[in-house]
Amino acid sequence: MRINFAFCILHFAFGSAAQTPHDRLIDAALNSKSSWETLSYLTDEIGPRLSGSNGAALAVKYTTARFREWGVDVVNERVIVPHWVRGEERGTLVSHNDQKIVLTALGGSVATPAKGITADVIEVTSYDQLKELGDKIKGKIVYYDNPMDMDLVRSGRAFDAYRNAVQFRSTGASRAAEFGAVATLIRSVASASLRTPHTGALRYDAKLPKIPSAAMTTEDAMLVHRLLGRGERVRMHLVLTPKTLPDVESANVVAEIRGSEHPEEVVLIGGHLDSWDLGTGAIDDGSGVAMVMETMHLLEQLDIKPRRTIRCVLFMNEENGLNGGRAYAAAHKSEKHVAAIESDAGAAAPTGFTTTLKGDALASFELRTEFLTRLKAHRFESTSETGADTSFLVEAGVPGFSLVPEPLHYFDFHHTPADTLDKIDPNELAADVAAVASLALELADGDELPRSAK
Amino acid sequence: MRINFAFCILHFAFGSAAQTPHDRLIDAALNSKSSWETLSYLTDEIGPRLSGSNGAALAVKYTTARFREWGVDVVNERVIVPHWVRGEERGTLVSHNDQKIVLTALGGSVATPAKGITADVIEVTSYDQLKELGDKIKGKIVYYDNPMDMDLVRSGRAFDAYRNAVQFRSTGASRAAEFGAVATLIRSVASASLRTPHTGALRYDAKLPKIPSAAMTTEDAMLVHRLLGRGERVRMHLVLTPKTLPDVESANVVAEIRGSEHPEEVVLIGGHLDSWDLGTGAIDDGSGVAMVMETMHLLEQLDIKPRRTIRCVLFMNEENGLNGGRAYAAAHKSEKHVAAIESDAGAAAPTGFTTTLKGDALASFELRTEFLTRLKAHRFESTSETGADTSFLVEAGVPGFSLVPEPLHYFDFHHTPADTLDKIDPNELAADVAAVASLALELADGDELPRSAK
Repeated sequence: MRINFAFCILHFAFGSAAQTPHDRLIDAALNSKSSWETLSYLTDEIGPRLSGSNGAALAVKYTTARFREWGVDVVNERVIVPHWVRGEERGTLVSHNDQKIVLTALGGSVATPAKGITADVIEVTSYDQLKELGDKIKGKIVYYDNPMDMDLVRSGRAFDAYRNAVQFRSTGASRAAEFGAVATLIRSVASASLRTPHTGALRYDAKLPKIPSAAMTTEDAMLVHRLLGRGERVRMHLVLTPKTLPDVESANVVAEIRGSEHPEEVVLIGGHLDSWDLGTGAIDDGSGVAMVMETMHLLEQLDIKPRRTIRCVLFMNEENGLNGGRAYAAAHKSEKHVAAIESDAGAAAPTGFTTTLKGDALASFELRTEFLTRLKAHRFESTSETGADTSFLVEAGVPGFSLVPEPLHYFDFHHTPADTLDKIDPNELAADVAAVASLALELADGDELPRSAK
Repeated sequence: MRINFAFCILHFAFGSAAQTPHDRLIDAALNSKSSWETLSYLTDEIGPRLSGSNGAALAVKYTTARFREWGVDVVNERVIVPHWVRGEERGTLVSHNDQKIVLTALGGSVATPAKGITADVIEVTSYDQLKELGDKIKGKIVYYDNPMDMDLVRSGRAFDAYRNAVQFRSTGASRAAEFGAVATLIRSVASASLRTPHTGALRYDAKLPKIPSAAMTTEDAMLVHRLLGRGERVRMHLVLTPKTLPDVESANVVAEIRGSEHPEEVVLIGGHLDSWDLGTGAIDDGSGVAMVMETMHLLEQLDIKPRRTIRCVLFMNEENGLNGGRAYAAAHKSEKHVAAIESDAGAAAPTGFTTTLKGDALASFELRTEFLTRLKAHRFESTSETGADTSFLVEAGVPGFSLVPEPLHYFDFHHTPADTLDKIDPNELAADVAAVASLALELADGDELPRSAK
């Protein structure tokens, strides 16, 4: 209270001349439409940007050119990425009316045979149950019934609910293949649905047969669950024709403003350029890209010279490989990263950050980030992971941060066709920019943070 | 207050023996799962029921058999219906990334040429503007920018908002064809969207060229609007391959319980059996069908003998022709209908009814329907239209009623793939049944209502 009062007096007495660089950044961010323009181009003018696609290549080109226009140093760093393309996708109940089942292939899924698979559907709720059923799995389409915990979502823990629900998407195909399943289905990992399929990557176990895998919409999953619950036989015809094409040469876009005192010390800020193919990747992660780009733009515009280097990395291939994050970590291994901020959780109003800092280190860092209070972005929460792309740095001990926009509706749109620009409020995006930019500056100018134990 | 108090005393003193038939119906309806079972079969086991389809035929068969099982007299009355089938539907922006536009053909639309149409998109907001643009419309795809008035939706007037927004869906194709447009697009008439297309019928003017017409999702419509708003040229490639096949013989399903005193006087209760093809027609209008069927079931089960005949009509072809309503009116022209209740507005909690009654007639009827108060279904609102299928009777002077379930979310789902069973709460459906059944009984047993002036 005293601090705020003192600040008010100072502010009143000296006007803008007394503003800290953090506050100048925040004011400029809140008054700028530039991040919205970046995001509009990425989503409306380019659209889907899955790794290996034309959209991803256009995004590399556009963001690189935009940094140059702004006068920010930028390079493209080579990343080899997978090139998976979605084909036809059809599910049909084999019945007297052959009802359509709305589904979408999981990213990386192999195709069914051209004429499709027809098999009985068997429901399980856990890998233990899969094991218990053993031989009964053979020749079946396994459906993992895994609704998102909506109480958890509504209590502000949507990302925890996601982590709980998503396991069957990642590893379910191989786990079922082990028992002879011919395909797997999940219930879309979704906090809302209007017959909306949610895709996302799967990971095959190299030692097991690869079987096709798809996500049904919440409605279709509930239908299958109801039919089985009534003791009915559920037979499904499934046609999926995705292809994995040869790998493609793509790039991380890396821009930086060199530190005035310690150019060799790097504060990394990052989001990912690639998106899933169904929507236009506005919340995942066009908005994160727009935020970290705008941070560079504002520093340049306001002629703020950070003590350490601030480096903005637009990672390629977060969604289905993480090759960009891996390539960056390998190429920049010898450099000293003092902190990493990742933004990959949408663009609702900021609430704060997760961080790998904890205990006293976090408590004293919180005292240094009072400037976030006016943005209502001052809540820090300790965690072990602060983002996929920067996980390689964080695992090596670099203090990590991840922006936490209000999470309530994130999984309504995540990985769906509905991840589009209209889901974002320009003012909330601007507040996110302000939070990321001011935190980045603090990390670049303030005392060095303790590294985590490796 | 005195009436309720008196009722309580009576109820307490005589228990269920003192119950009115209305209250017995209401109690039974609230405690029965049978309407939910009907609806589950129509949606989960049959699914889409567009006129002329296999699903529609299955629905006629199933509902007829169910009435027979219940011991309710039932006949099928012949209706000839159109048979329109949706084909492929693809929209693409012609651009450096050929972004996908999610859209769905309007019911009855003609196809594009097999290789599609490629043309510039021009936006209008009114037919006046279309006229002003005149020659500039030629060769273009006309986009009608017609967002739903969400303030109206939120204030409880969703159906008014729908009526305002839907005009371009019905008549927009022909109005634009008059000026040489090659296709038309509307913004889905929607109060919510997760990239969700809303279909619905169009009506061609026989004197004008028929051009293809589709509804974009809210998101895609907003994208086109934004691109045009930035002064960009918007070119679209459109492929629609619907077909109109030869007409099909189908049926209205007509069940009745003959009146004990005035069998020649008919109270009609109706919903429609057909649905759009995208969803499973749970709110539109499987639920209406379930409600009016259950009314018959309960009367039969409780052995209630209405003074007048109560006739339940499951109309075919409400969505794209109204041939069922028309055929019924023609075949039963000579009969005396004393009232008609239509249920075609979903199955959220009942709030009351719209009615063609007004003034003193309505005021005195309200005094007769106190039994609706416990259901919170006692709000009557005067209107000129109480439903499409019964409009032929109502226009001829028959007092009309239409159930009004809470309308807030109806147009989130209406005419979309998301119109599925999970959108309905079994208890709310049961309360709707109670409201419809008790009102029907009052109309069958009470004083005859005044007919409207023709």
